[in-house]
Amino acid sequence: MPSKTSNHISHTSQIRVRFTETDPLGIVWHGNYIQYFEDGREAFGREFGISYLDQKAHGYTSPIVKSTCEHKLPLRYGDVARIETTFIDSAAAKMIFRYKIYNPQNQLVCTGETVQVFLNAKGELSLTRPEFFERWKKKMGL
Amino acid sequence: MPSKTSNHISHTSQIRVRFTETDPLGIVWHGNYIQYFEDGREAFGREFGISYLDQKAHGYTSPIVKSTCEHKLPLRYGDVARIETTFIDSAAAKMIFRYKIYNPQNQLVCTGETVQVFLNAKGELSLTRPEFFERWKKKMGL
Amino acid sequence: MPSKTSNHISHTSQIRVRFTETDPLGIVWHGNYIQYFEDGREAFGREFGISYLDQKAHGYTSPIVKSTCEHKLPLRYGDVARIETTFIDSAAAKMIFRYKIYNPQNQLVCTGETVQVFLNAKGELSLTRPEFFERWKKKMGL
Amino acid sequence: MPSKTSNHISHTSQIRVRFTETDPLGIVWHGNYIQYFEDGREAFGREFGISYLDQKAHGYTSPIVKSTCEHKLPLRYGDVARIETTFIDSAAAKMIFRYKIYNPQNQLVCTGETVQVFLNAKGELSLTRPEFFERWKKKMGL
Repeated sequence: MPSKTSNHISHTSQIRVRFTETDPLGIVWHGNYIQYFEDGREAFGREFGISYLDQKAHGYTSPIVKSTCEHKLPLRYGDVARIETTFIDSAAAKMIFRYKIYNPQNQLVCTGETVQVFLNAKGELSLTRPEFFERWKKKMGL
Repeated sequence: MPSKTSNHISHTSQIRVRFTETDPLGIVWHGNYIQYFEDGREAFGREFGISYLDQKAHGYTSPIVKSTCEHKLPLRYGDVARIETTFIDSAAAKMIFRYKIYNPQNQLVCTGETVQVFLNAKGELSLTRPEFFERWKKKMGL
Repeated sequence: MPSKTSNHISHTSQIRVRFTETDPLGIVWHGNYIQYFEDGREAFGREFGISYLDQKAHGYTSPIVKSTCEHKLPLRYGDVARIETTFIDSAAAKMIFRYKIYNPQNQLVCTGETVQVFLNAKGELSLTRPEFFERWKKKMGL
Repeated sequence: MPSKTSNHISHTSQIRVRFTETDPLGIVWHGNYIQYFEDGREAFGREFGISYLDQKAHGYTSPIVKSTCEHKLPLRYGDVARIETTFIDSAAAKMIFRYKIYNPQNQLVCTGETVQVFLNAKGELSLTRPEFFERWKKKMGL
């Protein structure tokens, strides 16, 4: 379910809360949302050809340099949650994604953002946008 | 190693990077730093009597409502890292902690912050600071 | 895709290998297969009405008392693996499941077994098969 | 605290149960014991010079090909558990470790075993014991 508005592109995916992702309070441990963000980002990446493996095929990795996460409501064991992952276009040599996670009642449980930079095959920081990323942006109409 | 300056209290603890905490790039997966923050916060809590179990004994839990994490350098398998956990005093019915993680070469690898609110035994949000937390702050000279 | 032969019932489900489930060798860390077994067991449980939440609704939990895991081949990031989960009927007050995990090339990568006992709401071990489990076995033709 | 009797060598280490390692039942999720076994095995390895990094320095890795785990009692959040890790000598090109985990009341909570094979730098299975492993065994008096 992709959708595009001006300078961002969204994709929706689902995760099912695992037993081990919940804590003694019966709710998902807060750190696991970082995993859900990655699940959403990789589902986006597989859909649009910008996943970790796609980047690797071009000789790049894109480590996370910043992440934020705000929690509104808990998720519980067995919940099937919806993740809305949005690529935020920018001029920088970075990838910025925003996330919204909804519970089965369609209530917003969590929002977040991650920022990634590009490292080339030697592990050096890319100060400009890699060619493969430029081509991808053009293909996506950005 | 506690230290206190005006309105904050710091504590230093250590973690050893586990094999499973590293990823195919050979570095700690970014989501695991949220766990390291919790390791630092709980080490602080055990030292100063404000751990999860201390709070629970007073009928409270304190879920994380916001976390941020900024990465400067990677950690690798086998690294023994130092976590500096600082309680930031505030007037709100919240607990704010800041984190600095250093590698064995004493370089800053990661900074972060978490914000927690208080829920009573019924799971209701505490709009004022719980009594046990007030007493704890007084005892700590805050 | 359920299938039943004499005294066992099988179910097939899928998992997609997450980035964080792989280690610096680029393969799934062995401990994560225990999670995959649980994924398979819970998919089986949702299909046939014997999941963790179904058991809990009847006042029971069923902790694992034994697990074994044998590894033949590795799984890698991005692999979509197939889990065949088989309930092995027995006269004991236990649940025994066997697992076979196949890679995308349909090669067997891992086999395993788990044994669970039943605890009632007070946490006491059930020495006989709980009524809900008896009814479930009957319904399943066992 | 090493100890050696005839053909096996033991080492004792400690782990502190993390909040995230416990589940909605308030006890350590069974899959995490595989991690505790690795914690014990790596503590053994650091003590006696046969850790993952030591093996890697000789051009070898040693993936787990089999693991078993039997649970007697649960561990809970905050427990500091003791792991007794024992190397079982054998003529095979394998490393066999047995584990016993004890709770703070010194009760046995879990036993287990892992079997590892050796892969050389090309990822090929070593059918005979690698030289570095032979030297290590001799040094250890095995």
